[in-house]
Amino acid sequence: MQALKEAILSKGQVINPGIIKVDSFLNHRLDSKLLFELGKSFALHFAKAAPDLILTIESSGIALALATAHALNDIPVVFAKKSSAINQNPDMAEENIYSFTHQNHCVIRADLRYIPKGSKVLIIDDFLANGEAIKGLMGILKKADASLVGIGIAIEKGFQQGGKQLRAAGLPLLSLVVIDEISDSNIRFRSTDGEI
Amino acid sequence: MQALKEAILSKGQVINPGIIKVDSFLNHRLDSKLLFELGKSFALHFAKAAPDLILTIESSGIALALATAHALNDIPVVFAKKSSAINQNPDMAEENIYSFTHQNHCVIRADLRYIPKGSKVLIIDDFLANGEAIKGLMGILKKADASLVGIGIAIEKGFQQGGKQLRAAGLPLLSLVVIDEISDSNIRFRSTDGEI
Repeated sequence: MQALKEAILSKGQVINPGIIKVDSFLNHRLDSKLLFELGKSFALHFAKAAPDLILTIESSGIALALATAHALNDIPVVFAKKSSAINQNPDMAEENIYSFTHQNHCVIRADLRYIPKGSKVLIIDDFLANGEAIKGLMGILKKADASLVGIGIAIEKGFQQGGKQLRAAGLPLLSLVVIDEISDSNIRFRSTDGEI
Repeated sequence: MQALKEAILSKGQVINPGIIKVDSFLNHRLDSKLLFELGKSFALHFAKAAPDLILTIESSGIALALATAHALNDIPVVFAKKSSAINQNPDMAEENIYSFTHQNHCVIRADLRYIPKGSKVLIIDDFLANGEAIKGLMGILKKADASLVGIGIAIEKGFQQGGKQLRAAGLPLLSLVVIDEISDSNIRFRSTDGEI
């Protein structure tokens, strides 16, 4: 995904080795044009799986999920909410996840009434590192008795374990860009052109 | 805005007098088709003001802001982040706001590097009640030395003071729907057809 690679190279900020900030186009300021391009790429790849809805996680997954939904004829989006508190509502599916970005544990939850049993669900998120958020979302889908038809990620950190584990499990993962190295002097992308 | 009124009537849940939950189409599950319609309505109204960017607040403003940005030729979106902690980064503009929904104080912040001095900014949010969030966003714009060209709200609670105050101050506010009463037996809309 050339446009995303270019944005990362020109606008990404390497904070520490292994950590890149993409606040200027993906996480705080949204480059709307780029987001709708990313959404089209996901749609093109996953259209055959005919997802009924998209599941993502607040906040930074929302824009990407909506852009993808738009390219899939405006299917609905459900975004899991983050919370530190346990909720007693029986309609809520909850999962505990560890956030690599924020270095803390949190609860994510989604209302099962919005994820119909048997529905075909596409998971979309901005980053994939250790895969904790994705595993949490998959846990919610299991509780909803819904079917996972794809996982679309904008930026995968290939030097962490999430992507490797999801692929080893045979899951239909598409990462638009995989970064294998982030250092002050270098950002090295994995060649994924064949896949996309 | 007929489509939004119909969604509120058919899918909104009155929790208590004065409080309506729109989780099923605006705040947790996103009705993508409806969101892009709302976005088009905002774009139609504010296109003449030629906004350079949209400012909103996480999480529930993000989808609406992106849909509006799309209808305005994909201008960028900046979403203010909520936090309980003070940040020392000099690039960050911060405002303290009181959330009516969550009944707590929080800090919202935005990186001033993404709101250029002199830029024309359209503020978009899902709800307007006492106007605390909007005033916080306006405070950020003031710190950025940017110019407010419009405020677009999906649902205004007309029985709270935010809308009244913003109009009294002569600000260019468009609420797609104004609700003047929420009770178990009745949801009463203000006639706003002339404005939209």
